[in-house]
Amino acid sequence: MKKGHDIDLSPYQVRTDLALESHLMAVEQQGNIISGVEVDEQQLEGIHITKLYISTDEGARTLNKRKGNYLTFEAPGLKNHDSALQDEMTNVFAKEFKQYLQQLQIADNAKVLVIGLGNWNVTPDAVGPMVVENLLITRHLFELMPDQVEEGFRPVSALAPGVLGITGIETSEIVQGVVERSCPDLVIAIDALASRSLERVNSTIQVADTGIAPGSGIGNKRKALDKETLGVPVIAIGVPTVVDAVSITSDTIDYILKYMGNQMDIRNPFGKPSKNPKHREKFLGLIGTLEEREKRQLIHEVLAPLGHNLIVTPKEVDTFIEDMANIIASGLNMALHHAVNDGNIESYTH
Amino acid sequence: MKKGHDIDLSPYQVRTDLALESHLMAVEQQGNIISGVEVDEQQLEGIHITKLYISTDEGARTLNKRKGNYLTFEAPGLKNHDSALQDEMTNVFAKEFKQYLQQLQIADNAKVLVIGLGNWNVTPDAVGPMVVENLLITRHLFELMPDQVEEGFRPVSALAPGVLGITGIETSEIVQGVVERSCPDLVIAIDALASRSLERVNSTIQVADTGIAPGSGIGNKRKALDKETLGVPVIAIGVPTVVDAVSITSDTIDYILKYMGNQMDIRNPFGKPSKNPKHREKFLGLIGTLEEREKRQLIHEVLAPLGHNLIVTPKEVDTFIEDMANIIASGLNMALHHAVNDGNIESYTH
Amino acid sequence: MKKGHDIDLSPYQVRTDLALESHLMAVEQQGNIISGVEVDEQQLEGIHITKLYISTDEGARTLNKRKGNYLTFEAPGLKNHDSALQDEMTNVFAKEFKQYLQQLQIADNAKVLVIGLGNWNVTPDAVGPMVVENLLITRHLFELMPDQVEEGFRPVSALAPGVLGITGIETSEIVQGVVERSCPDLVIAIDALASRSLERVNSTIQVADTGIAPGSGIGNKRKALDKETLGVPVIAIGVPTVVDAVSITSDTIDYILKYMGNQMDIRNPFGKPSKNPKHREKFLGLIGTLEEREKRQLIHEVLAPLGHNLIVTPKEVDTFIEDMANIIASGLNMALHHAVNDGNIESYTH
Amino acid sequence: MKKGHDIDLSPYQVRTDLALESHLMAVEQQGNIISGVEVDEQQLEGIHITKLYISTDEGARTLNKRKGNYLTFEAPGLKNHDSALQDEMTNVFAKEFKQYLQQLQIADNAKVLVIGLGNWNVTPDAVGPMVVENLLITRHLFELMPDQVEEGFRPVSALAPGVLGITGIETSEIVQGVVERSCPDLVIAIDALASRSLERVNSTIQVADTGIAPGSGIGNKRKALDKETLGVPVIAIGVPTVVDAVSITSDTIDYILKYMGNQMDIRNPFGKPSKNPKHREKFLGLIGTLEEREKRQLIHEVLAPLGHNLIVTPKEVDTFIEDMANIIASGLNMALHHAVNDGNIESYTH
Repeated sequence: MKKGHDIDLSPYQVRTDLALESHLMAVEQQGNIISGVEVDEQQLEGIHITKLYISTDEGARTLNKRKGNYLTFEAPGLKNHDSALQDEMTNVFAKEFKQYLQQLQIADNAKVLVIGLGNWNVTPDAVGPMVVENLLITRHLFELMPDQVEEGFRPVSALAPGVLGITGIETSEIVQGVVERSCPDLVIAIDALASRSLERVNSTIQVADTGIAPGSGIGNKRKALDKETLGVPVIAIGVPTVVDAVSITSDTIDYILKYMGNQMDIRNPFGKPSKNPKHREKFLGLIGTLEEREKRQLIHEVLAPLGHNLIVTPKEVDTFIEDMANIIASGLNMALHHAVNDGNIESYTH
Repeated sequence: MKKGHDIDLSPYQVRTDLALESHLMAVEQQGNIISGVEVDEQQLEGIHITKLYISTDEGARTLNKRKGNYLTFEAPGLKNHDSALQDEMTNVFAKEFKQYLQQLQIADNAKVLVIGLGNWNVTPDAVGPMVVENLLITRHLFELMPDQVEEGFRPVSALAPGVLGITGIETSEIVQGVVERSCPDLVIAIDALASRSLERVNSTIQVADTGIAPGSGIGNKRKALDKETLGVPVIAIGVPTVVDAVSITSDTIDYILKYMGNQMDIRNPFGKPSKNPKHREKFLGLIGTLEEREKRQLIHEVLAPLGHNLIVTPKEVDTFIEDMANIIASGLNMALHHAVNDGNIESYTH
Repeated sequence: MKKGHDIDLSPYQVRTDLALESHLMAVEQQGNIISGVEVDEQQLEGIHITKLYISTDEGARTLNKRKGNYLTFEAPGLKNHDSALQDEMTNVFAKEFKQYLQQLQIADNAKVLVIGLGNWNVTPDAVGPMVVENLLITRHLFELMPDQVEEGFRPVSALAPGVLGITGIETSEIVQGVVERSCPDLVIAIDALASRSLERVNSTIQVADTGIAPGSGIGNKRKALDKETLGVPVIAIGVPTVVDAVSITSDTIDYILKYMGNQMDIRNPFGKPSKNPKHREKFLGLIGTLEEREKRQLIHEVLAPLGHNLIVTPKEVDTFIEDMANIIASGLNMALHHAVNDGNIESYTH
Repeated sequence: MKKGHDIDLSPYQVRTDLALESHLMAVEQQGNIISGVEVDEQQLEGIHITKLYISTDEGARTLNKRKGNYLTFEAPGLKNHDSALQDEMTNVFAKEFKQYLQQLQIADNAKVLVIGLGNWNVTPDAVGPMVVENLLITRHLFELMPDQVEEGFRPVSALAPGVLGITGIETSEIVQGVVERSCPDLVIAIDALASRSLERVNSTIQVADTGIAPGSGIGNKRKALDKETLGVPVIAIGVPTVVDAVSITSDTIDYILKYMGNQMDIRNPFGKPSKNPKHREKFLGLIGTLEEREKRQLIHEVLAPLGHNLIVTPKEVDTFIEDMANIIASGLNMALHHAVNDGNIESYTH
């Protein structure tokens, strides 16, 4: 995973890069209305789309995410390696991403630089570089033989800059240097993310116009890839590929509670499984009485001495990563070049 | 992972391929003396060696493992990618494995066929094929130019037969066919295993003279690789590379109990953390009162609806697998060929 | 390349595994009618199909190839990475191969084992293993859940057995063992070949019902994969991926002669470039007077001292091999399973 | 190969990136003394070292190479995958490269950025990226934890920027951007080269302090990586990995002449094989009378219509490239960090 993640494992922080999950946690604690956050959901066949808009600083603080537009696609069925669903996800992603660009008033001929973040030697971190390998690259054609480029394409360039341990140079420094020299109008940065839920790993895509800010909670501005540092808009596309053992355990304890509540049909007045502390204590003892944050802190303290390698990924990681990278690469090829569509995408994507 | 594992996930079964872990669980339930099981432990610097001998059917039933000699190496430090420890592990493994062969009365010039089980396209399952790629192969030299083979080598051949989904043929059928044609005196089968503990994943090697019996609990004899099916002794070498989420959660709940017991200094008369059910209930409610088996069954029921992809591997899987495969390949090269040693191993291993 | 090739480089032998090229050479020396050899050619758009039938021992001796049916597809345009031509080649290959099976009276439901010969670590030798990775494997479904297999499929299994240096076991021994155990009705063996012409490298597919006989000139029966050794028909599919420097040089010298003849318009009475020895000597001195065989022997003697690494492949070998493997895998998937066709092949091929 | 090479195939130009070969050709035409070129040769066991200094513009024109210091290592035995020779080559390269840096007055603590040029998807072009993957990277340690870096290391960073077709951005633009941001004192650029001789392919390393100037004959300054464009010294390290068919053929024709001259013992008064045009014509007809340049132009014209894929590489390209990359990476690790030496290099190089 991203270097920042490894180092900055903050004990009290629930580990998620998905605004969607931050929102779910906030709702769990504060109820459905979160000030400064608007949510719009849509269910297509097999794909759940969530549009989440964090409009105020208060909303950003509550969710611990930057202000901006978050667009999330969830398709749990992707884990079954279902090629029809993959095609549908590709088309839906392409169509929605095109609209997203229009909504951000990115021109149709805006020059795009795609940055594939992450370490190609670490499979769960390789989704960014893998997308880059499959993109339709055209910038050099516009530069070298502008007369011969057909209608329906725009200048697209791409780079997988590697990670700090491989290059010795901050990713942001490399990207800044390349942006200055190659002058794109828009940067799209692809990265692997951490989710707090095994369910969402490798079946979810998040798009955000916030840029990417590793260690954002800490305020290390130097490392961010965003409009401020790069001078052009930065859209982040992320795929959760890992989850930490703390999250798995904590969620499972919650599931147990719900499950036992259901089994014994103990419900609150709204018909939902009881959150009554008495019930929680009955089933889970002292642990049941802990706040979410306290519980995770406890689990973290318990697991930490066992070693730091507690970030895990499903064992089918190779296929999952390849499938997700194909969806994003094909989707971007369609969204960025009008000449590329569902019918001819095979010829353009490797 | 091995096909058998995926399909045969038996709900009540603690998921471990390590005899060591089966033994630890039995000890936890029945105390230190398990009938029909002998254990001998040894601590080298950074490496823990356990020799476990299951001598009776009763012992085999208790541990749910075949009768035989199990030799296990644990070196948690391997996860730090420490090259000095890797070298030491290689040497210790080579030395012990040589003795193990002598103890089984395998002749010094016995012809060896190494089978690298598993799927090379699935990183946590690729340890077997990766070992095979790095072995010193000599059988063809003995066959084609016997006069030119120097002293200190023996005929070694190797095959990575792939998995059912890739070949359409049972691995055991392929291996049987090859054994019949190539007539080795001994088969060594390398495979990725499941552990019940994240700690042991990618830092443990298990050697067993029992052969490999996928779905052994179910009695599917046809698929086994053992002396009965192949006609020659079969030594299994395994590396745990995955763990299921049920185990992670269950173990964590146990750790929590111990941790809280320690924190509050509630101990039993022997000075160990209390296992008094009252204490367990205080901290963990009803869950604290469950038997190990009941608890895992509960967690399994809770997690199952979330999807079947609950077998996980550390995100650093690529490096870990490569390191373990190098240790085993180098160790086997030294153990099988007297002419190969610590000083010249670099020239022989890829 | 295949081990056999490396070792058996016979000095006087023109190095080609293509019956087509053997035939062209024979025609050059003996004229259009070769006794015991029938030829039928067909030109589709961009693809040249040659059907060559060696019916007698005399024909086999003349061409130094086994008796049997040879079907060759040449599409020089494939080197331009042209995806439309790739699709066409796939369809043409699938259609012709289906007919070829019918002509050989292979039943529609015959069980097929595909063997991917060659070394996956040597790019120009990896075409066989790469085809195997992309095949639609179904045998295990017929074995394990016969009721659930849909119409239009047949049992297909596959194996990439590796090469002698990797396994220590003769490929033929491995394949024999697997055939005995898995009982296919037909074996299809895919291999990389040597051509005598850079033009044909990576743009040609040869199909033959002769089996594969490495070192066939030498009579090493033990190593052959054919009906005699395996007990079932063996169809060989080969792609020339390498050429030796002797061939390149020798052909170029011939081209020079033709070219200079054209330039100076020196022609024989039939309007073709003159083969008059006087003209050859004028342009090429003593070398121009040599027989083909003598010339190659001379070049071989000249080059041999420079080292044995004189078998070369185009620098774009990685892409070429991948393209050819995709064509063959997709083509086989369509030819072997009636349910797979041009419209749905994407879902079935990796 | 490098994009520039593909496009700029100039018909009359002998295709070599090795100053050594340019010099040999010049000597062949003009005799041993080339104005403005100094040569010093040294033969170690199995390794031939040539130091070539082009001191004047005239020398540069004659050799068609930039002015500067060229250091070339030739070890034909490397093609035999001989691990002892590999170790020796590594040590010799490290020692000589260290001296070379001193001679250029590069300080011991100068910050170094290594650029791995070339396309990682094209095996014969992947030597640069492969070196980068195996370097000991330390710059980030100096930046993030300067107190903890031990003696004997210097800040080293590295980047494999990809090729124009993959990124859409000129390599030079990427490198300029990264140099500006990361401020190294020295750039070392590794690249695959073209040789005119199969003998030198994959067994030769050239070091030059001239920078890298693709299409240097054409004067496309924008694309160069040199002191002028980057503002810091640029040392180029190159490995010839390909050769064009024109060179192979042309050289073979020359070899034939020498060979036949030897056979017939026709020698010039100095005891060397005769270059008397009469003799050349006798053996090779009109072709024997052509100047080197004319002959290559003829061969080029003859071969061009057969397709443009006439740049070839030995079929063992995968192993050769890996071996050469290991030698350079290990050699650089030793030369750049005093703390790394023959005894501990295994721990530092992947």
